Amino acid sequence: MEIYRFAQEIILDAGEFIRNRMIEDFNIDSKLNANDLVTDVDKETEQFLFDKIEERYPQHRILGEEGAGADIEDADGVLWIIDPIDGTLNFVHQLENFAVSIGIYIDGKPYAGLILDVMKNDLYHAAFEQGAYKNDEVLHDIEESSLKSSLISTNANWLVREGINAPFIQVVKDARSVRSLGSAALEFVNVVRGTSSAALFFRLHPWDFAGGIILLNEVGGITTTLLGDEVRLLKTNSILAANKTIHGELTEYFRDDDSFIKNHKAFHKL
Amino acid sequence: MEIYRFAQEIILDAGEFIRNRMIEDFNIDSKLNANDLVTDVDKETEQFLFDKIEERYPQHRILGEEGAGADIEDADGVLWIIDPIDGTLNFVHQLENFAVSIGIYIDGKPYAGLILDVMKNDLYHAAFEQGAYKNDEVLHDIEESSLKSSLISTNANWLVREGINAPFIQVVKDARSVRSLGSAALEFVNVVRGTSSAALFFRLHPWDFAGGIILLNEVGGITTTLLGDEVRLLKTNSILAANKTIHGELTEYFRDDDSFIKNHKAFHKL
Repeated sequence: MEIYRFAQEIILDAGEFIRNRMIEDFNIDSKLNANDLVTDVDKETEQFLFDKIEERYPQHRILGEEGAGADIEDADGVLWIIDPIDGTLNFVHQLENFAVSIGIYIDGKPYAGLILDVMKNDLYHAAFEQGAYKNDEVLHDIEESSLKSSLISTNANWLVREGINAPFIQVVKDARSVRSLGSAALEFVNVVRGTSSAALFFRLHPWDFAGGIILLNEVGGITTTLLGDEVRLLKTNSILAANKTIHGELTEYFRDDDSFIKNHKAFHKL
Repeated sequence: MEIYRFAQEIILDAGEFIRNRMIEDFNIDSKLNANDLVTDVDKETEQFLFDKIEERYPQHRILGEEGAGADIEDADGVLWIIDPIDGTLNFVHQLENFAVSIGIYIDGKPYAGLILDVMKNDLYHAAFEQGAYKNDEVLHDIEESSLKSSLISTNANWLVREGINAPFIQVVKDARSVRSLGSAALEFVNVVRGTSSAALFFRLHPWDFAGGIILLNEVGGITTTLLGDEVRLLKTNSILAANKTIHGELTEYFRDDDSFIKNHKAFHKL
């Protein structure tokens, strides 16, 4: 559990680093400056985490959104998968609702997942088969629910993209209501907290889901592709993160749509 | 300004009333209980506000989401338009992201708008031509922005409703990104704060927009129907709340769509 505790320390440090950088440089009235700042802070935060991990665990490998480990092709050994700022548009436009996400895998098996809501400084963390926490508070198993009585999360982009949108449209019609937060990591967190019953994405990168999958597993949820297949850790995937009941219900919408299946396969090079 | 100050007092009291009711009765693990609770708390909170207003200002009239003033057909005198819980599904499923909304109009003219983010206990308030505030902090004029560089808010429902969805779909395709929060009052607040550049709704009731319109006006924004027409205070309306630049851009999407215009007219009995 030493690596897990170390991960908790450095993700909290990364959050403080980001908040300080925002105070230093941020002209709150200018979205243009914010665009530049997020690029800088994204890279600096990845480097900040990279340096800390490399100093402590020189043998570990790191795959990051900003380019670290771009040559990694297998999951051997200890692999850190990091998104220094998940929800960059929220960072730019809202100054909130963005996260640092870390997933740690050992020989491809889940070890620990951590997501920090940076502005609230709330840390969601879980080690495999050890339960999930919000800061020091244990998170309980999520409730089962059906689509018609559930809030779910997805992005409007998928509803307007021809070739794949038919099942998304039917899901929206059948759901109780739909929310879009704009940070995949925090949409995972909402499923983990039970404030959303499912989160649906047509495309996520490893750093978008690596931490969330482990967290959700610890509260009784499940993550697969939209078709119900196992997520490939080092590739882009469609993602369905949900309680098990609604998960089963939702995969049927996508499995029953030949056009979706064909385009999903082509897009993700399956 | 006496009425304005009184409104600030009672909306904060209403927030405390709601939070206390949640603590008293809320079995946090049961969405089913939450469905019952929101019905009760909605009605009780409207009654709570109704009693306070009637005691202090017996001559004022009140139009509320839960049935108060259902017979009101004109805006003469001092009219309070109240939503005791805006974002009821968020109340039920998230225990956050819901609001109390109050708009006060005198002979149909804007007097004061107040929206309380209940769980954050943040009060957004404005008196006509006196500026807008978040608690004691002055809110600055919002920035102008174009659709392609903006986050906007809308609900997935409008994207999947045949007959009206074509312009919504094109807006989503052309926007930088789309968010859905699930509380009209708080989506107004996000435009007022500048964390969203526009909020689009196909149908809102008076209590959903009465407070927000006044707040947004005080930071240089504008609210009309999606076609750019003046909002009818006592009727359902489509609503476009935005900075003036993106507002002009967005109305063109809806004005150019004959099917939308026809169905919009029929739906709102224009």
